[in-house]
Amino acid sequence: MFVILVYDVGEKRVTKALKRCRKYLTWVQNSVFEGEISETNLAKLKMELDRIIVDNEDSVIFYTLRTTRYSQREIMGLRKGGQDLII
Amino acid sequence: MFVILVYDVGEKRVTKALKRCRKYLTWVQNSVFEGEISETNLAKLKMELDRIIVDNEDSVIFYTLRTTRYSQREIMGLRKGGQDLII
Repeated sequence: MFVILVYDVGEKRVTKALKRCRKYLTWVQNSVFEGEISETNLAKLKMELDRIIVDNEDSVIFYTLRTTRYSQREIMGLRKGGQDLII
Repeated sequence: MFVILVYDVGEKRVTKALKRCRKYLTWVQNSVFEGEISETNLAKLKMELDRIIVDNEDSVIFYTLRTTRYSQREIMGLRKGGQDLII
């Protein structure tokens, strides 16, 4: 399946959260990640993030797409994820 | 169609961008919006944002889903958009 993940995590925890997300997904913008991921790895990622985030302060949204056949992505302005891939 | 919009816009322009996005979509997290939108309104929103953002500093990602039949959303932690709807 394809996942779009967006987080809003407190400064103290953001590095840890970033590391976890990049382990499984591709970074596309400041707080946005996406990619093909298996159900097992998605469950792992959720578990790992659950240990990091503070429930009443942080927020993580998972959009799960069973197929990308009916969806497309368009970027306006800077491609921030691209820089990340180069570095 | 259904749109998920995520922006990363400089502080000086964020209020304007927020206002434009909320005109057409529902705010779900700090920099995330979603909702059903017509092609005409999506084109309008893109045009309005294009006037606000600085191309080599800001970034706006549009995920366009022709159907939400194959997708789902899950939120971990705080439902920030909910607060917005109450206010």
